[in-house]
Amino acid sequence: KTIDETQKNSYMLILLLFSAGLFFEYICVFQDFDLAVIYVSDALYNRNIYFDTSPQAVRLYQLYNHWLPRVLVYFFILVDLSLALFEEPAVVPLPTWATMLVELLCLLVFTIRLGHYAKVIPRDKFWKDPKNICIIVILLLTLIDMIIYGALTATDCYGVRWSRVLRPLLLVNVTEGRQLRRAFRSIRNALPEIFYVFLLFMFSILTFSLMALKLLGKRGLKTIDGFPYFTNYLEIVFDLYVLVTTANSPDIMMPAYNSHVIFTVFFILYIFINTYIFMSAFLAVVFNNYKKYLKEEVRQLVKSKRHKMVRAFAILQERREEGGEPVVTQANWNQLVRLVQPGISNPHRELLWSVSDDKNQGFIGKLAFVQLADLLNIEVITLKSRPHPLQSLCPAFYLSAPSRLLCRLVEHRAFVIVYDLIILVNAVFIGLDEENPMISNSEWFFLALYLLEILLKLYVFEPRIFFSKHSFWNWFDTIIVISALIATIVNSALKSAGGYTSRQILDIVFILRVLRLIRVVDSIQRFRIIINTLIRIGPAILTFGQLILVVYYIFAMVGMELFKGKVRFYDENSSNPAKAYCGNSLLNESVFAKSNYCKNNFNDVVSSFILLVELTVVNQCSGFATVTHASARIFFVLFHIVVVIIILNIFVSFVLEAFYVEYSVDKGDLQTALEKKIEELELAVAQYVPDNLVNNMETIDNDLGSGQTPTAAKPALMFKIASKRYRTVDAFLQRMFEADLDPEDFAENEDPEAQTNGNFSNPTFSSA
Amino acid sequence: KTIDETQKNSYMLILLLFSAGLFFEYICVFQDFDLAVIYVSDALYNRNIYFDTSPQAVRLYQLYNHWLPRVLVYFFILVDLSLALFEEPAVVPLPTWATMLVELLCLLVFTIRLGHYAKVIPRDKFWKDPKNICIIVILLLTLIDMIIYGALTATDCYGVRWSRVLRPLLLVNVTEGRQLRRAFRSIRNALPEIFYVFLLFMFSILTFSLMALKLLGKRGLKTIDGFPYFTNYLEIVFDLYVLVTTANSPDIMMPAYNSHVIFTVFFILYIFINTYIFMSAFLAVVFNNYKKYLKEEVRQLVKSKRHKMVRAFAILQERREEGGEPVVTQANWNQLVRLVQPGISNPHRELLWSVSDDKNQGFIGKLAFVQLADLLNIEVITLKSRPHPLQSLCPAFYLSAPSRLLCRLVEHRAFVIVYDLIILVNAVFIGLDEENPMISNSEWFFLALYLLEILLKLYVFEPRIFFSKHSFWNWFDTIIVISALIATIVNSALKSAGGYTSRQILDIVFILRVLRLIRVVDSIQRFRIIINTLIRIGPAILTFGQLILVVYYIFAMVGMELFKGKVRFYDENSSNPAKAYCGNSLLNESVFAKSNYCKNNFNDVVSSFILLVELTVVNQCSGFATVTHASARIFFVLFHIVVVIIILNIFVSFVLEAFYVEYSVDKGDLQTALEKKIEELELAVAQYVPDNLVNNMETIDNDLGSGQTPTAAKPALMFKIASKRYRTVDAFLQRMFEADLDPEDFAENEDPEAQTNGNFSNPTFSSA
Repeated sequence: KTIDETQKNSYMLILLLFSAGLFFEYICVFQDFDLAVIYVSDALYNRNIYFDTSPQAVRLYQLYNHWLPRVLVYFFILVDLSLALFEEPAVVPLPTWATMLVELLCLLVFTIRLGHYAKVIPRDKFWKDPKNICIIVILLLTLIDMIIYGALTATDCYGVRWSRVLRPLLLVNVTEGRQLRRAFRSIRNALPEIFYVFLLFMFSILTFSLMALKLLGKRGLKTIDGFPYFTNYLEIVFDLYVLVTTANSPDIMMPAYNSHVIFTVFFILYIFINTYIFMSAFLAVVFNNYKKYLKEEVRQLVKSKRHKMVRAFAILQERREEGGEPVVTQANWNQLVRLVQPGISNPHRELLWSVSDDKNQGFIGKLAFVQLADLLNIEVITLKSRPHPLQSLCPAFYLSAPSRLLCRLVEHRAFVIVYDLIILVNAVFIGLDEENPMISNSEWFFLALYLLEILLKLYVFEPRIFFSKHSFWNWFDTIIVISALIATIVNSALKSAGGYTSRQILDIVFILRVLRLIRVVDSIQRFRIIINTLIRIGPAILTFGQLILVVYYIFAMVGMELFKGKVRFYDENSSNPAKAYCGNSLLNESVFAKSNYCKNNFNDVVSSFILLVELTVVNQCSGFATVTHASARIFFVLFHIVVVIIILNIFVSFVLEAFYVEYSVDKGDLQTALEKKIEELELAVAQYVPDNLVNNMETIDNDLGSGQTPTAAKPALMFKIASKRYRTVDAFLQRMFEADLDPEDFAENEDPEAQTNGNFSNPTFSSA
Repeated sequence: KTIDETQKNSYMLILLLFSAGLFFEYICVFQDFDLAVIYVSDALYNRNIYFDTSPQAVRLYQLYNHWLPRVLVYFFILVDLSLALFEEPAVVPLPTWATMLVELLCLLVFTIRLGHYAKVIPRDKFWKDPKNICIIVILLLTLIDMIIYGALTATDCYGVRWSRVLRPLLLVNVTEGRQLRRAFRSIRNALPEIFYVFLLFMFSILTFSLMALKLLGKRGLKTIDGFPYFTNYLEIVFDLYVLVTTANSPDIMMPAYNSHVIFTVFFILYIFINTYIFMSAFLAVVFNNYKKYLKEEVRQLVKSKRHKMVRAFAILQERREEGGEPVVTQANWNQLVRLVQPGISNPHRELLWSVSDDKNQGFIGKLAFVQLADLLNIEVITLKSRPHPLQSLCPAFYLSAPSRLLCRLVEHRAFVIVYDLIILVNAVFIGLDEENPMISNSEWFFLALYLLEILLKLYVFEPRIFFSKHSFWNWFDTIIVISALIATIVNSALKSAGGYTSRQILDIVFILRVLRLIRVVDSIQRFRIIINTLIRIGPAILTFGQLILVVYYIFAMVGMELFKGKVRFYDENSSNPAKAYCGNSLLNESVFAKSNYCKNNFNDVVSSFILLVELTVVNQCSGFATVTHASARIFFVLFHIVVVIIILNIFVSFVLEAFYVEYSVDKGDLQTALEKKIEELELAVAQYVPDNLVNNMETIDNDLGSGQTPTAAKPALMFKIASKRYRTVDAFLQRMFEADLDPEDFAENEDPEAQTNGNFSNPTFSSA
């Protein structure tokens, strides 16, 4: 064979391979469009699941992310957790077989969900993820516990359902519990530092206790109950620990103070060092660590988001010219956005495109494409002017002079002030005795005034504007007033029918009446800012709510096993002599019984939760040590350390950081470049709209059909950025740390290390 | 006259003027050297007094800054404040004329000091400064009050010494109270933001109270004392306010909870919103404002410091060549530094010069000169190796094999561990009953061990190293052990002499024994870091101590007028029946009397202060409302708002920020460029020193006479930066915000606006 032929063959081969490659690429583009959509929506919602890219796995993955199975999982977790209401010690006792059956059903659902997850992600990834191992272990342990417990109860032995403490851990380890896992990781990362401060704090308490023992133990002082004062070292340690929580101040100091004034120096020094210095140090350590690790996590999140967008870009990219930069065309982009967010309006999409395609080229590069996830996360309200329906129906009347005057009156600032005054007068009337007929009849008058206000506003403003999605206070007002009207009518009807007043309905009426007063807050600008800040950190507070739920549940389960039935509550009308000492003769004449704390017990899950809330506020637990053993205090000290020293400090850290961001944003410091871009464009759009129309806008988020050409609609359209709202908690967190994120981080995405390590790994308990 | 002659005349005139100018300049340089020294030391200690630059005023200003008059002023303020101990209601009663005479003396001292100040600064500046006006008003009001009070007591009328509340304000307005004024300014600047959050908070409390009244008022519930529960609106408001401080939790909730479990929802919601959300919001608002304004103040401080250095430079500057940059020669610089810090060692000064004169030119420019104040603020420890005195005295013995082994043993890590274990065993022995003869005799054994430890260390380490300025723990150890030894001997001597044991001496022995245990903390690295952080923020905490003193003093004075004698304490052995109700029949059967709180009263200034500390921890005040009027609660609520919501939050903010800086510094983030420069140089110096000598160094801060040439001393010298110590609180604050300070700020100093506004204006109450 000649060299020529070989060369020709190889040319042929290359050509063949090339054309095959082109064809394959063609197929892939259409097959992979789904994949691109999934990558973008994962980036949008910050999902971090490393799924298989086979078409079958992708379909399964789409099903996995469907809202229905996710809601179902949460529903069954809720059912599983609320089983505690029906199990021994129960609020509503159910037979054991019934609760066991329901629990088995729950376990089945979790197993199916986990199986589904196993199908979606590669086998090796599945087994490497501690989250999954954790769920499997929990499921197995629960099953074993149920079998043992079933066997024990069948043979009439005493069994403990110890696996109940594992239940809340499902909430942590379920795929959707990302926020909660992050909070737990923050805590775990801060633990070493907290631990050393805690050791020092304990050393300080132990030293002070030793000094108290030597100084006060031998003086023969007595506590108020006549017990010897500061004679037992462990008792002193516990008492001084409780003093840190301020629960027994100043009682613990009084015997020493009564003996001599100089001993107050000891206590004041103790309180200063331990309550103020050490507690501030705990907060400082938690705050610093929280900030540090959260920043790192958010950085990882942003990196992974960008990487997913780069993957989507790789699928959709085309080359305009030979050797040019790969780009995505407007057609592909439009189709992608439509699939990712089916509800998006055409003008909104057009706006996003014009932000991305700054130079109006018809295609965008990688950098502009990667922004898409952030762009979609900015909530844009599309406004369109629309006349009042009455104006359309009866223009002569609606546009007449008296009608116009009425409109002007209602729109005037004085209208708001008058109604604020009415609310204040109403508040006074509510405070007065409602059995006075004058007062109770005045309620009708106020109700009429409030109804009139709503009707007037509906007359002046377009109803669809008035009841738009973002008009929280209008909705609040209307619902409260109408509910109050209904409840008041029902109440009067009942009263006039049989002279009978339902306490429940009356309570509802009262609550509604008082809630009506809250509206005053909205009319003061300064208050609105503070309230908006508080509302905005709301979703993140929900994460802490879950965290608290997990910790409370575990402590409640343990507490119920330890203390159930030790303290009993007797009804006020009960004549049982045990009532005076909460049904436990050990409590006779104790402060616990005398303070009427009998209902603070661990006899069922509801009481336990209420008691744990009380313990969070003030650590009052002397009663439980009395009825069981002094070592029971360990339970309460542990609870204080976990909830007050760790979790509440994380909560305060979060609020501090959130307020800091909100205050900075209010001063215009943290406006992102992205939002500024849209703002510029919004102004450009707004130029078409006459100024006086701005107040007469309507949200038409899903209103414009695709048949309508966006250019034609533009003159009457206006965009408004709800920049302070975030669709996801992650977006809010990202905003919090945006100032510290390297904008050049994007470049690092090509880094192979980052691809394998940072991006698609599920952040789990082991990842930091 | 010809033109020539005119020209000649004018030439002559110019020459004459020029030579006169030169002569004048020559005089000025030597006369103004003092002025330059004052500018630099003002910059060093951050003094901001706009003094007259006439030679006479400069001399007065030097006297004004002398330590003696400053200490005297503080002493007389202390005397003035402590007069409260001797005035009615007194701890140690003195006749009115005696306290009045002392107070007159104090007023005289303050007047003289103010007069001195008036001589130092220009007249118009004096009258523009609210600080001075404030002092004059306080002095006048006090004088008027004393006259009125004297007249009233002379005619046997009842008089109130109302001007006593003004006394602590002297502490704020005295020239040296800069830190305190800054803290007050921080508070005042944060007030508007706090106020709006507070209004919202009060609105929340009022709304919740109204709801509580409507929901619970009509149910006929009873409190534990049998009073009607939640029937009076104002009582509810107060009770719910106290619930925010957690003082009456869960008592306030129990009647409702006992009635029905659903009411806990109300209380839990209340506690969540008001105790957790609002209290965190207060902290967040205070923290943000504190950071913001403190940063601005420190910026002003740095600007003013730089400007003073620029002034000093302007006095000392020379021109090397025609048209060249003005410079300061090494000779002038050396003289200046010697005058500013007379105690500085030659090598240290040489080091600073070599940092400033980077290129070894023999002169420095403006930029390098301005750094001087910061350079002098960095505490540099000069180390010099020196053999052990025993080695010099008896080298054959000290360098023998057994002696060397002993040294190696003592220097070994195990030696520390063995002594830590001894301390732990000692702790157990202290905890045991000391009346057991075995235990009490073991004390001698432990004392011997501790003494042995100190002697061994003195044998191994050079005594002057062991007792060097920075060896806090060695000093601590030695003082504690020797004091314990003396006290134990005295105690035993007393006991064996007459079988009599002095309780006071025994107490001291006990305290010393327990204090000895603290040493354990120092041997654990992690603890040392935390403790060092706490010690480092110590000076700043002193400022808060003064702040608290001012607020407590004012509240104590008002409280004593309102509540003195209303509650009486009877000794335990008293048989007076009034003992059961604290001498006030209104308190019969009240919780206050039953809890034995009688000693918590406002009957003298010491009791008042102790009570105020208790109120800071937990707001227990029901007793005082009972003995006077329900409106007395306003006093306690006001105290809570001022101390807990404002001052404690500022304190926590400070600790948070300080910990943040300390943690960042530990990780090497905030090392300043200046310190790095010296570090580089330190390494250069350290190269001459063999490594094994480093552990045998000695501080010789003032040791090297000026006769010794620094170059000759160098090989055995080493510099160490005590970078974590700050000579002044300002330096620490500056460090805290250094990262945010614009390094180019220096350029702005030439700005005329900055010169008149920012630089020399005394930061006062009106300046922000």
